[in-house]
Amino acid sequence: MPPSANAGLPHPFDPLSSTEIEQAISIVTKAHGDLFFNVVSLQEPRKAVMTAWLANPASPRPPRVADVVVIAKGGAVFEGFVDLAADKITSWDKLNGLQPIITMEELVAVEHICRKDPKVIEQCELSGIPKEEMHKVYCDPWTIGFDERHGNAIRLQQALMYYRPDVDTCQYQYPLDFCPIYDADKQAIVDIDIPKIRRPLNKTKPIDYHPTAIEKRGGYRTDIKPINITQPEGVSFKLNGREIEWQNWKFHIGFNYREGIVLNNITFNDRGNVRPIFYRLSLAEMVVPYGNPEHPHQRKHAFDLGEYGAGYMTNSLTLGCDCKGSIHYLDAEFPTRAGGVRTIKNAICIHEEDSGILFKHSDFRDDSVIVTRARKLIVNQVFTAANYEYAIQWIFHQDGTIQPEIKLTGILNTYALNPGEDTNGWGTQVYPGVNAHNHQHLFCLRIDPNVDGPKNTIFAVDAVASEHPVGSKENFYGNAFSARKTKLGTTGTAKTDYDGATSRTWDIANTSKLHPYSGRPASYKLVSREVPGLLPKEGGLVWKRAGFARHAVHVTKYRDDQLWPAGRHVPQTSGEPSLGLPEWIGDGTESVDDEDVVLWHTFGVTHIPAPEDFPVMPVEPITLLLRPRNFFENNPVLDVPPSYCITPSQVAAGTGEGVVDAADKESTLAFKQGEGSCCAPSSRTSRL
Amino acid sequence: MPPSANAGLPHPFDPLSSTEIEQAISIVTKAHGDLFFNVVSLQEPRKAVMTAWLANPASPRPPRVADVVVIAKGGAVFEGFVDLAADKITSWDKLNGLQPIITMEELVAVEHICRKDPKVIEQCELSGIPKEEMHKVYCDPWTIGFDERHGNAIRLQQALMYYRPDVDTCQYQYPLDFCPIYDADKQAIVDIDIPKIRRPLNKTKPIDYHPTAIEKRGGYRTDIKPINITQPEGVSFKLNGREIEWQNWKFHIGFNYREGIVLNNITFNDRGNVRPIFYRLSLAEMVVPYGNPEHPHQRKHAFDLGEYGAGYMTNSLTLGCDCKGSIHYLDAEFPTRAGGVRTIKNAICIHEEDSGILFKHSDFRDDSVIVTRARKLIVNQVFTAANYEYAIQWIFHQDGTIQPEIKLTGILNTYALNPGEDTNGWGTQVYPGVNAHNHQHLFCLRIDPNVDGPKNTIFAVDAVASEHPVGSKENFYGNAFSARKTKLGTTGTAKTDYDGATSRTWDIANTSKLHPYSGRPASYKLVSREVPGLLPKEGGLVWKRAGFARHAVHVTKYRDDQLWPAGRHVPQTSGEPSLGLPEWIGDGTESVDDEDVVLWHTFGVTHIPAPEDFPVMPVEPITLLLRPRNFFENNPVLDVPPSYCITPSQVAAGTGEGVVDAADKESTLAFKQGEGSCCAPSSRTSRL
Repeated sequence: MPPSANAGLPHPFDPLSSTEIEQAISIVTKAHGDLFFNVVSLQEPRKAVMTAWLANPASPRPPRVADVVVIAKGGAVFEGFVDLAADKITSWDKLNGLQPIITMEELVAVEHICRKDPKVIEQCELSGIPKEEMHKVYCDPWTIGFDERHGNAIRLQQALMYYRPDVDTCQYQYPLDFCPIYDADKQAIVDIDIPKIRRPLNKTKPIDYHPTAIEKRGGYRTDIKPINITQPEGVSFKLNGREIEWQNWKFHIGFNYREGIVLNNITFNDRGNVRPIFYRLSLAEMVVPYGNPEHPHQRKHAFDLGEYGAGYMTNSLTLGCDCKGSIHYLDAEFPTRAGGVRTIKNAICIHEEDSGILFKHSDFRDDSVIVTRARKLIVNQVFTAANYEYAIQWIFHQDGTIQPEIKLTGILNTYALNPGEDTNGWGTQVYPGVNAHNHQHLFCLRIDPNVDGPKNTIFAVDAVASEHPVGSKENFYGNAFSARKTKLGTTGTAKTDYDGATSRTWDIANTSKLHPYSGRPASYKLVSREVPGLLPKEGGLVWKRAGFARHAVHVTKYRDDQLWPAGRHVPQTSGEPSLGLPEWIGDGTESVDDEDVVLWHTFGVTHIPAPEDFPVMPVEPITLLLRPRNFFENNPVLDVPPSYCITPSQVAAGTGEGVVDAADKESTLAFKQGEGSCCAPSSRTSRL
Repeated sequence: MPPSANAGLPHPFDPLSSTEIEQAISIVTKAHGDLFFNVVSLQEPRKAVMTAWLANPASPRPPRVADVVVIAKGGAVFEGFVDLAADKITSWDKLNGLQPIITMEELVAVEHICRKDPKVIEQCELSGIPKEEMHKVYCDPWTIGFDERHGNAIRLQQALMYYRPDVDTCQYQYPLDFCPIYDADKQAIVDIDIPKIRRPLNKTKPIDYHPTAIEKRGGYRTDIKPINITQPEGVSFKLNGREIEWQNWKFHIGFNYREGIVLNNITFNDRGNVRPIFYRLSLAEMVVPYGNPEHPHQRKHAFDLGEYGAGYMTNSLTLGCDCKGSIHYLDAEFPTRAGGVRTIKNAICIHEEDSGILFKHSDFRDDSVIVTRARKLIVNQVFTAANYEYAIQWIFHQDGTIQPEIKLTGILNTYALNPGEDTNGWGTQVYPGVNAHNHQHLFCLRIDPNVDGPKNTIFAVDAVASEHPVGSKENFYGNAFSARKTKLGTTGTAKTDYDGATSRTWDIANTSKLHPYSGRPASYKLVSREVPGLLPKEGGLVWKRAGFARHAVHVTKYRDDQLWPAGRHVPQTSGEPSLGLPEWIGDGTESVDDEDVVLWHTFGVTHIPAPEDFPVMPVEPITLLLRPRNFFENNPVLDVPPSYCITPSQVAAGTGEGVVDAADKESTLAFKQGEGSCCAPSSRTSRL
């Protein structure tokens, strides 16, 4: 076995270590010669094997297997598996008509080639950029997505072109109107898409966000006083390798090139009974369709995870900047294209935050009261997808709730607009000459539930009024309403959309485990309110490629390796047939009733840009909840010590004896008497 | 003029001071003899007068007027206004068929009378409570709401009955099945509602949340390490009386018995230009309909603001318990029923919080980056409505967003359930013998906009796909989509519901103020996703009484004193006719296009209880946003100093010169080498 960053053996869910990556590369290179390495990543243990090991960790560990994808000279793509203990390749296949994920190194290569290409230089000149300014021309290379004129036999990128008058200027203010097509094997521009209407470089002066620009516009504000967040006694979580324990929660924190953070084997210690809840949670795919029908903007619908990778694009985070408080970091290790290893330090940030009131109740009769503060644990990464940044936060609450939250920031994708030109409603002029197209961010959360065991059933739950009319004996006053639960029994019937009118939620239930009081199955409820439908139309390009985005919820029966709902290899898929989820669902007749199931939830936001989003977007958060319902016997946080508690008998006794007063002694009044405030601040900090 | 808690004269929006309350009571008592005082509150200045004064604060101040509501012996209700400067009553009217708000003192009176009432004692005995245990019988008195058998001429309360085996036990575990009706004038029980099916007292042992109970069940958890939040250089906000300034925001913080916190004259200093945004924001009403059709549960649909008052029920908050960090408090002063003054110390809490990343962007080419942290300001109150608590947070963000957020906690309203009895889906057995009925919490946010001036127009905004089919020249690839804006031109057409399928939002627009780049009107967008429809049916009791809850959005033309959408006096209204909003909307033909308008937004949650909510509910938050769109020239937070910024030229220079590195020096790594974690923590905290 290879050595590990951990003491002892790696946990079977641990990402491949640098040594393991090097070993896999060495084995493959020995067998197949020099190659470009796109992927060298853990093939996660087969679930049956892993489940057996989790039940008995003293049994032999599941084997460490590397999942390898390479590109040979000439563009041929191969994939295979390497058994690291056996030191051998166990499978090796050539892929036809499939392009693997694009690496950062492939992206970075394009700009330099564009700058030297005579046809690109010609187009720049037509746009008003003299050829001696080609070093001021930039491009954000995207995979071409799919373009029916080019197919998928050749590995292609589309170069979204920009100009920077100054190296520090935000390029998205100066979009160019043409789009070179780059052949990754030839390392050359093979075509250029030129629009019918030309839009030369705009000459507006930049609105920049770098310090020199801000200083010129009057400088930074000076009225923000520091807030310090400290944990003098240390943090409340413990790590054993990549397994974390916090407030009854225990889970493993994985990370891969594709999904970034992966959480496995999530359990909750329910008064001594360690109950499984999720086998695996991850953000498994996303698509960002843009709404401008003008060619070639239909190609702008980035599958940021499948085409570029939330792991590959992840930021190295900085203490006191990205993360505040007492922080633990985990690094990420990936192959380089040439067969080395690169480390992203501080790829994952783990910390706790105070979370306001956890619960409170006062009795109006006597002001007896209990108030308890909440804490949350956040496992966080930030990745940069060219112009946009996504902060992915996995928030754990003490009450058994898991809250995936995504914060969108970074910069709008922009296109050129002529003076006086109408956007026709497909975009917004966010700055003179800058058209930010309408777009959606649709994320697919892969939920592999394990609610008191692997066999679970999904129900759609709608809040509905009684069918009986006002005045009837069943509903005389018209106030009757209840939750209508619809079992999603097959993969076909499980395709369900959000219904705002009924506040639809989805229950992930173990129908064999009925609650002793409510009689209802132990469940985790998916509560998600930011669920726009896929706006690109049925039968169109995006609809075909992004099958997962057609419905808010899909359910499939669990199968190993069905991880990524737009397919394993996403760049340049045509959507004919639709890969991933639509394949797995097939004719829709497979039972997902009381089976080991996977729930795929697509949520997100439709973004009609506004000038406030430019030149860089203030964070826009999107969130959802996975909440225990009929799972715990009662409120599971009663054992969190209160900040203050006085019972009716203590109020009556009036002695203060036994009253809990654990008020945080570091909190202070904002102002001393008369300071900063004209009204005298309250000097009373104790209860009536 | 009366003296004031502030230096100098009171701000015209300031609540009445204790001296002013005393003066008003004295004037009324002198004129009309001894009375019970239900309301002595500021009549807010007429908008025309106030607007003139705000434009010229050197001009004479609007007069201080007390709005007074009293109950005379015999139950007659009077209301009037007292001009405090003139020391006289300017109007005085007897109300017929209207009951004013219930005070805490009226509520507290009922329980003692119940305990002594022979018929109540008889029912308790039938339930299994011996008469010598009547001191263990409790009631939560609610206004009767409306009961057609009793009408509204007599002031009535319904007593929801409970038993406490021990004074410290949570009574909601032991609901009794009958409901006495209390006459407030007679101070006597005048009727008892007895169900057909009797449900005697359940004998289950309690599940309590007080310390003794927790200690018995194994004690409090001991693994939560302190998080300290401190502002050693003070807070970033300033107060002048009740006017607060923070990060370009300026507004007045009012408070009244009814709505609690009221925010007035909200402006944003946009690079030297002080722009009005909202004239007034408040939570103006709410209703909590319960979904069990069995008589008399239809009466459980509390209008907590109109019937009891978010001000009257507000908690006195405690530093380091309810509020953490550097806190400023404001007190509240109200009349007592007998004509005195009571002070609720620390009724409002004001503080700042760190709010994660404000914006971030990295350039993938060179890892040049900017990351800036966000701050938010929170103006907060918590009120207790018998069993429930509501924490009302008004969150201000630096980017111009206002985020009202409500946190629900406290205890479920419960009813008795026999062993083996079916809830029929109208409720959940959350504990043996305890039926928690389905309910909704529907809040009405009153938005009096002033977006660059009082004349505003409301648009419903839907994200919709192009009407053109896939393959058409207008939408060849099917990806076209845009925002469809529908002007809500009249009060009738403005009645609009949420549409989850189109991610509907509402724009509050100044159509005379077009954005220089986008050409779109300066707007604030209402983004609200938790918008269940009113489940009680059209024509039924709740539908009639809670006209505001019939639609997510209503719009009316501004009129002084149209503040509360279920009417000024809510207890015992029949809903025939529906008071408040339905009256003001009338035939729906009035224009609200480019007028001084008010937008009424009803949002909330449908709550199907689960055992996790019992015996006390972990906080469930509900939130929405008011976001500037096409309002600012561009991102308004570029002047917030970054935590870290390195530009491409600085990366290239490699000298570190001019790089901003304002990393918070108080943040630390969670673990020292080897401590608490088996993997070696990263020692690297600087950027690649």
